[in-house]
Parts: sequence; C-alpha cells; structure tokens
Amino acid sequence: MDLSSVRTTGEERNVRVAVDAMGGDHGPEEVVPGALLYAREHPGDTIILVGRTERVRAIAGRDVPASVTFVEAGEVIGMDEAPALALREKRDASIVVATALVKRGQADAVVTAGHTGAGMAAAVLGLGRSPGVDRPALAVQMVTDSGPFVLLDIGANPDSTGANLFQYAHMGAIFAERVLGVAEPRVALLSIGEEKGKGDARIQRATELLDASDLNFIGNVEGKDLVHHLADVVVCDAVLGNVTIKFFEGLSTFIFDLLRAEFRRPPRGPLAYALMKPGLDRIRAVFDYEKLGGSPLLGVRGTVIITHGRARRRMISYAVAVGAAAARARIPDLIAETFQHRRGEAVS
Amino acid sequence: MDLSSVRTTGEERNVRVAVDAMGGDHGPEEVVPGALLYAREHPGDTIILVGRTERVRAIAGRDVPASVTFVEAGEVIGMDEAPALALREKRDASIVVATALVKRGQADAVVTAGHTGAGMAAAVLGLGRSPGVDRPALAVQMVTDSGPFVLLDIGANPDSTGANLFQYAHMGAIFAERVLGVAEPRVALLSIGEEKGKGDARIQRATELLDASDLNFIGNVEGKDLVHHLADVVVCDAVLGNVTIKFFEGLSTFIFDLLRAEFRRPPRGPLAYALMKPGLDRIRAVFDYEKLGGSPLLGVRGTVIITHGRARRRMISYAVAVGAAAARARIPDLIAETFQHRRGEAVS
Repeated sequence: MDLSSVRTTGEERNVRVAVDAMGGDHGPEEVVPGALLYAREHPGDTIILVGRTERVRAIAGRDVPASVTFVEAGEVIGMDEAPALALREKRDASIVVATALVKRGQADAVVTAGHTGAGMAAAVLGLGRSPGVDRPALAVQMVTDSGPFVLLDIGANPDSTGANLFQYAHMGAIFAERVLGVAEPRVALLSIGEEKGKGDARIQRATELLDASDLNFIGNVEGKDLVHHLADVVVCDAVLGNVTIKFFEGLSTFIFDLLRAEFRRPPRGPLAYALMKPGLDRIRAVFDYEKLGGSPLLGVRGTVIITHGRARRRMISYAVAVGAAAARARIPDLIAETFQHRRGEAVS
Repeated sequence: MDLSSVRTTGEERNVRVAVDAMGGDHGPEEVVPGALLYAREHPGDTIILVGRTERVRAIAGRDVPASVTFVEAGEVIGMDEAPALALREKRDASIVVATALVKRGQADAVVTAGHTGAGMAAAVLGLGRSPGVDRPALAVQMVTDSGPFVLLDIGANPDSTGANLFQYAHMGAIFAERVLGVAEPRVALLSIGEEKGKGDARIQRATELLDASDLNFIGNVEGKDLVHHLADVVVCDAVLGNVTIKFFEGLSTFIFDLLRAEFRRPPRGPLAYALMKPGLDRIRAVFDYEKLGGSPLLGVRGTVIITHGRARRRMISYAVAVGAAAARARIPDLIAETFQHRRGEAVS
C-alpha cells in the first residue's frame, strides 16, 4: 500500500490506534478489513478493534496479525441519530468506548467512520479541549492540481470569531508541518476577495491577529483558488468550510456522472472510453480523495480522525494511517504547547 | 438567438436598456457587438450605448438598428481600480453615466461587464436602496442538473444578519417568479446540514422569519445539493455565496482542463475526442453559463445587471436580455411594494 501521502517527521515510535469497528454506512464489513489492511503493512503499530467482538472477530477471520486486539462495545450510534441524545443513552457505544481508550492512555488515536456529530461530541465530551484552545476544529485535506492542502474548520463550530479562526490557523499549520511534512506552511483565510483583509468582520479580525503572528500568513484566497495549491492551510468558519467540501463532492460527482453517461452511450461512447481509459485513470488519481484518509479533529486532548461515512476498506486504511501519523507526531501535545505558550496573548 | 432561459410574464411593454459600453476585460470590442446582437433580435426595445461615442460608433459600424442610441461618457473605470475612489474621481465614467440614465427615468435598466464593485457602488450611490430594503443583494443563476436556480447574496454585503437573509429571500423569490417564470418558487437557506434551522445564529434567525412568512420556505440545502434543483432560490451571506460561485468556476474549469489535456494527448486522445464530441457538446450545454447572462443587483431603485468581466458578445447579449426582462417585469417596483407593505414587520 502506498502511504506516501501520509509522511511523518521525527521519531518513528510505535502507536496504538483504536478503531470504531461498528461505525460508517457499511459497518464492520468494511471497517474491519480496512483496519487489517493497515495492520498488515505496519506490524509495529497496535490496532484495537472496538465493537461487538463476536461479530468483529468473525469478519476479521483467522489470519489476524498479532498486533491487532479486540475491545468489546455492545452498542452502535446510527448515522441518523441525534448525537447528544445518543451519547447520553448509549454509554457502551463503540465510538464512546474507543474514545475512552484514548482518555485512559490505552490508545494514542481513535478513528471512526461513524456519525460525524457523534464522533466530534464523543471527543469533546470524552477527551476535553486542549489547554488554551477555545474551540476545536475539524480539518480536511483538499484535492488540488498539485497535492493537498488543509482546510479547516469544516464543521465543528458555526459562529466562530476572528480569534477562533486565528487558533484554527495555528492548529492547521501544526498538522500540515508535522503530518504532511510541509516546511513553513503558507496560511490563508478563505474569503470574498484576494486583497488581504477583505471579507467580513471576523475575517478582518483574524487578519489582524495573523499579521501579528509568527505564522507564514499570506492573506486571502478566493473560491476559484481552492483548486490551486496557493496555500497549505486555508482557514474559514464551519458553515463556509462545510458548504465548500460538500459542494466539491457534489459538483465533481455531477461532472463525472455526466461524463460516465456519455462514455456509456452507444455506439461511440464505449469505444471512446476504451481509448481514454489511461487518461481517465490519471484524472481519477487526481481526485482520489480516499488516499487523504480522514479529517482530524484538532484542539482536543487526543488524536481523533473522522472519516467519510461512505468510506470503504481502502479509505479506512488511509484514515488509520492519518491517525497513526498524527499520534506519532504528537499533534495534540504540540497544539497544547502552542496555546499554553500563547495563552492570553491574542484572545478577543 | 435562443432566449428561452429568459422568460417574461405579464405585459410585453418595450424597455430601454443602458449598456456600459466600455466595461469588462474586453471592453467595447465585445460589449458593443453583444448589445447589437440583442438589439437586432428585439427591435421593440431601445439599447443605449454609453461610452466614448466615437469609438463605440466605430465598433458598431454602419448597420446599426434604429433602436440603438449613443450617449457620451468620456471616462472608464478600470478593472483594478478601487471602486469608491474611482467613482469620486471619475464623474464621467461610463458606468456612472449609464446608471444616471436610469436615475433620471431615461432608461429602464443598466447592464455592465465592468468592475463589479464599481457597478454595485454606482447603483447604490446613484439610485439608492429600494424603500424598506436594508441591504441590496447580488444574485446569480446557478447551473444544476435540471435548470438554473437563483443564488444570493454573492457579494454585496458581508456581515449580513438573519433579517437581511430574510429580505434576500423575498427579493430572490420575486426575481425567480417574475423573470424565470417559476410559480411559488421554493426558497432555501444554504447551510451546514439539511435539518431546518441547523447552521449559525443568522441562519437560525432567518429560519424563524422565513417560517413565519408567506414564502414557500423549504428549510436548508447543503453544499452537495447545489448541483441539484432542490430549491429555486438559495439564500446565504455574501462570503459564502461568493466563495461558492467562484469555487464552482474554479473546480469545473479544473476538471474540464484535465479532460481537455487528456483528449489532446496523442495518439489516442484526439480519436477519443472525435468520438465523444457530441457527448462533450451536451455536457458543455449543461455548463453554458453564458446563457444565464448576468447577476441582478436586487434592492436598488432600478434594474441593474452586472455580468462577468470576461463576458464576450454572446454572454453580453444574454445579460442585456436579463436586464430587459427584469425591467419589463418591473422587479424594482415589486420589491419596493413588498417591503413597504412589510415595513417594520420583521426587522431585527
């Protein structure tokens, strides 16, 4: 498996990743094989499969690497449940039990394909915010014409302030530097115009704070710039980030579906498809978001990766890789150090 | 010319459209032929070409329809100028003179491909807001899998409130009903989740106001829904709307550029292209944003259409058509009637 998109810097210590084996649209039938894919390639890391052990073991089969362990969790939070209520009522849900392993120091990261809201709530309630962090942020790696950049917040906190965006910028830069291996990551705000400071009041406030910081702040990027790699970290409020990533998914799917229909239209479509197959494979590789794995929830006391509900085994294996890399790089510790150091410096 | 995308309802009175002949990246060389394209198809409407008359007449040539008139304006606001400063210093700029024709009742609409900020500022300063409207909004028609919907605000006002979004919803619905011919247009808010009311504080406030209104309010749409025609009017703040339309342009261009490169790659690409040409033309027709013409600035005392700076003659002709249709439907009067009637009803 090519994990070149997930690089680590510094020490190569082994880590323990708790995987919510029951989460996601496809449940353990995809999550368990995905976790095993990772485990077989990385025998030094421990994979802890959390869920209904009997079912999880049955799916895992007999040929399970020695580095894989099983932890029982009797309940599952469904994709349509209200997160707060579900977390209150299902104390034995797989995402709750998996997160508790991180809390108790028995795992270094948790990875889930389950309900995003439940995963975030389990992390915030179960692990708590990192010291000095006002609000955690959910980040994602975005496809561009020349490698991914980090976009955040894509859904943790609507109504963020300029000071929140400022913290997101720091957290995103730490992730880009330590997990993606980008030296001095370029940080930008997503806004309405490219002139620095153009935007709404919170963008203007964040601009002031970032201008005065030691980050490599390059000003604004616009919507049209998101397909180019103008910045390594792009910061925005949750509503804007969430609409952006979902529109990315919706629009690219729409275009590729139109193309697929034309390539299937007889008599010429199938022949054109045969001729274009290598080219289409190259385009598919550009849009291979499965390799980007999952979204780190930054700013909580532990490494938490939330991947797509529709993720299949290949994407799950990459999500585990992102979790392992973030845990190995001690991202939560680095974030805590950054904000303890800055505490009271620029919070308004 | 097929103007089926621009329907009018009600009376078929003739209108006078003032065209900023100097605006846009391509200047009068594209704007003037575009305006003439419209004039030849619609001899009942008057087209007023505003700019350096000598140059405009030279481009128009000898065969000018009798319905086309010329108004002198000696200056031009460049695409890179600061709008407020330029408007102060260039009293004789083509966009200022064209807007003044509407103000004085000598034209029913103004159409410009010039600097968007300058066009909006000229309209707001020159015409003023419609009575009862707190903030104007810039709208655009968005491409979907089944005909366009209206998205607004895409750039007039950052830091809008829930009450502003409520007014945008009314203005967008009037445009959709009277210019696009949609009966009882479905109105939605663009947000982070599909459950009604999910989003930030202003989306929640707008939800309350819209729930209590007589609009056909259907709740939220998400980013992934923007390629489907789930709503006829989608309302959001300027930063979100602007990033959305620019990301649409950036991402679709990115994908089509990747495809173009593969279709040009010898030896198989050109053959595949020849086979797929009819299919690609069908896809191109879906993404034919030129037919959508231009963006109406809703909520000012007059019909104002701002089209793409890169618009060429074909798109200019459609922008003039949108301006004529909106003027014919008396959109500014309908907006004023709506808000005078509602004044003080829901402004918070």
